[in-house]
Amino acid sequence: MIKKNYLLAPGPTPVPSEILLEGARETIHHRTPQFVKILEETLNELKYLFQTEHRVYTLLSSGTGALEAAVTNLLNPGDKAIIVEAGKFGERWREIAERFNVNVVSIKLEWGEAVTPEQIKEAIEKHPDAKAVFTTYSETSTGTVIDLEGIAKVTRDTDVVLVTDAVSALLAEPLKMDEWGVDVVVSGSQKGVMLPPGLAFIALNDKAWKLVENSKNSNYYFNLKAYAKKYPDNPWTPGVNLIYMLRKAIQMVKEEGIENVWERHRILADATRAAVKAMGLELFSKRPGNVATAVKVPEGVDGNKLTKIMRDKYGVTIAGGQEHVKGKIFRISTLGYLSIFDTIVGISALEFVLNELGYKVEFGTGVKAAQEVLFKEVNK
Amino acid sequence: MIKKNYLLAPGPTPVPSEILLEGARETIHHRTPQFVKILEETLNELKYLFQTEHRVYTLLSSGTGALEAAVTNLLNPGDKAIIVEAGKFGERWREIAERFNVNVVSIKLEWGEAVTPEQIKEAIEKHPDAKAVFTTYSETSTGTVIDLEGIAKVTRDTDVVLVTDAVSALLAEPLKMDEWGVDVVVSGSQKGVMLPPGLAFIALNDKAWKLVENSKNSNYYFNLKAYAKKYPDNPWTPGVNLIYMLRKAIQMVKEEGIENVWERHRILADATRAAVKAMGLELFSKRPGNVATAVKVPEGVDGNKLTKIMRDKYGVTIAGGQEHVKGKIFRISTLGYLSIFDTIVGISALEFVLNELGYKVEFGTGVKAAQEVLFKEVNK
Repeated sequence: MIKKNYLLAPGPTPVPSEILLEGARETIHHRTPQFVKILEETLNELKYLFQTEHRVYTLLSSGTGALEAAVTNLLNPGDKAIIVEAGKFGERWREIAERFNVNVVSIKLEWGEAVTPEQIKEAIEKHPDAKAVFTTYSETSTGTVIDLEGIAKVTRDTDVVLVTDAVSALLAEPLKMDEWGVDVVVSGSQKGVMLPPGLAFIALNDKAWKLVENSKNSNYYFNLKAYAKKYPDNPWTPGVNLIYMLRKAIQMVKEEGIENVWERHRILADATRAAVKAMGLELFSKRPGNVATAVKVPEGVDGNKLTKIMRDKYGVTIAGGQEHVKGKIFRISTLGYLSIFDTIVGISALEFVLNELGYKVEFGTGVKAAQEVLFKEVNK
Repeated sequence: MIKKNYLLAPGPTPVPSEILLEGARETIHHRTPQFVKILEETLNELKYLFQTEHRVYTLLSSGTGALEAAVTNLLNPGDKAIIVEAGKFGERWREIAERFNVNVVSIKLEWGEAVTPEQIKEAIEKHPDAKAVFTTYSETSTGTVIDLEGIAKVTRDTDVVLVTDAVSALLAEPLKMDEWGVDVVVSGSQKGVMLPPGLAFIALNDKAWKLVENSKNSNYYFNLKAYAKKYPDNPWTPGVNLIYMLRKAIQMVKEEGIENVWERHRILADATRAAVKAMGLELFSKRPGNVATAVKVPEGVDGNKLTKIMRDKYGVTIAGGQEHVKGKIFRISTLGYLSIFDTIVGISALEFVLNELGYKVEFGTGVKAAQEVLFKEVNK
């Protein structure tokens, strides 16, 4: 049988052909007025995705590069920072911070839990010398979203800078950087933005920029002062063709309308959640988000085989669990350029594979539940 | 919501990106040893698709061009030919034949019926002066396949040349031109061959070529003697980039294995038939084939709206009925580069639209039936 590829993992996500074709355009030289004009227009438009009036710096790196940029540009060695660890990406904040000798105060939660504004408030009160709070808006490893708006209400009237990793959350979860008062938002290209991997983004408001001005860390490639000096041009070679693609992606998001983009992710996630519940499966997250639905592998089923068969036999790439939940959960993404039928494909493939692995579920059970949600949403 | 395009109409069918990328390669000049070498290799390999050792001429036209080439190269004005008319494409044979002053003996059947070898036998006995029989292997307008092998058994020991329109049938239905003794097979590129429209094919064996040699018809562009003289080169400008794409398509078919390609079409068609029956719908064809499943529009449902909503709201292009069955049937294709999930998408979209149009069907009903067929086939 023909095996088409369905990318239902939380990044990289499918890239629309309109965007791929932009990437296939001729590479021009980056130190030209022609390219700088494209860059300027693109970076201006990029602000819409973050709902900010502040600059969004575009790095040629994966999302992790922008996480490092946030840490090293905001903090000096010995500075205290509160870091929320409730999954792999929270842990990554801590690993980076420790590598740069930050004095880490960790809010360590069980995987699947979501930090609350109250917990952030307590930590700040306990550590009034903390310069920043590092959060993960969508903890992709557990399919959990935090109340970022509520957390920003806690930090906005303090001197503490609120940093959030929105690598997977951008466009998948509502995010109003300026209105909510989130000080630093970090993201990447291969998620909701519908691009291949290669670009990372970091948006900072004035409150955050004051920390950058006082930073004396040893960074070079990710030194944001160098980016600021050259803005909108890049201090180093920018990703010319990725910028073409970004321009097109932003145009598509604007045409769709950012509220509709957020809503689309919510609808597909709702349908996915309804489907897995109808199949008798249990959600892993205590506060499930719209990036990916994390599901507990039912007893008797080999979770590693499940994701492998989904991918190798059916062409449907979902994500397994990471670290200590490897084999214990799987994650079906609803992130990026996906239609309602991508979700139906994912659920129907899951029905196939669960049956193959001994978890008997009547065909159509999950699909029906997903269809009911989708039909209602599409026709309301 | 994001609307992706799902091509479930019997042509054009989806083109794999591997093939599209071949089409994006640099156009070289056609009168060069480089291109003629590509052409020679490609035309040699093309024989595999027809299961023939004879030449397959490649025309730069739609399939209709090759139908005209068959008529004008085989017959002279006044020649008698038996033409089977059981749908729109049978009628096209007659229209072309009449335009070129052929003496047409029509076997006219109800739409949805399939001509039998016995009917062909009777017609030949009644018209021993008929030079050729024109059939439609897959009558796409009704989703009907004929017993081509059985018909070839009737004609192969006579002087009558058996011509078949396999424009949609090629690769979707088993076809062994030489083994069965089909004398002329006509096809096109935008169907099972997985290419965009633009190429048409006509394969002829020695028995058929004798008629060509005696033909005195006024044709020029489609004059096969001109093609034969230049073969493997083309007498007129060939479709350079389409030839690149054809070469890739043939390579993909060879890798899959032609029996597997036939089987793949059979499986998806079986699943589609099971799904529509489970939804309480009725098949239109008396002898359904694997190109497209023609379904009677249930009472009270507007058939024209059905195909329009499928396409405009859900992005799923299926075909409606043509001529006197317009609005009365719809046709879901299983032709070309489709995965099992394309069929599931088509069925789930049909469930949405039928419910919108007042035909109440429980969600998942058709999908479940399709899944049961697909699961069994994929795991056998």
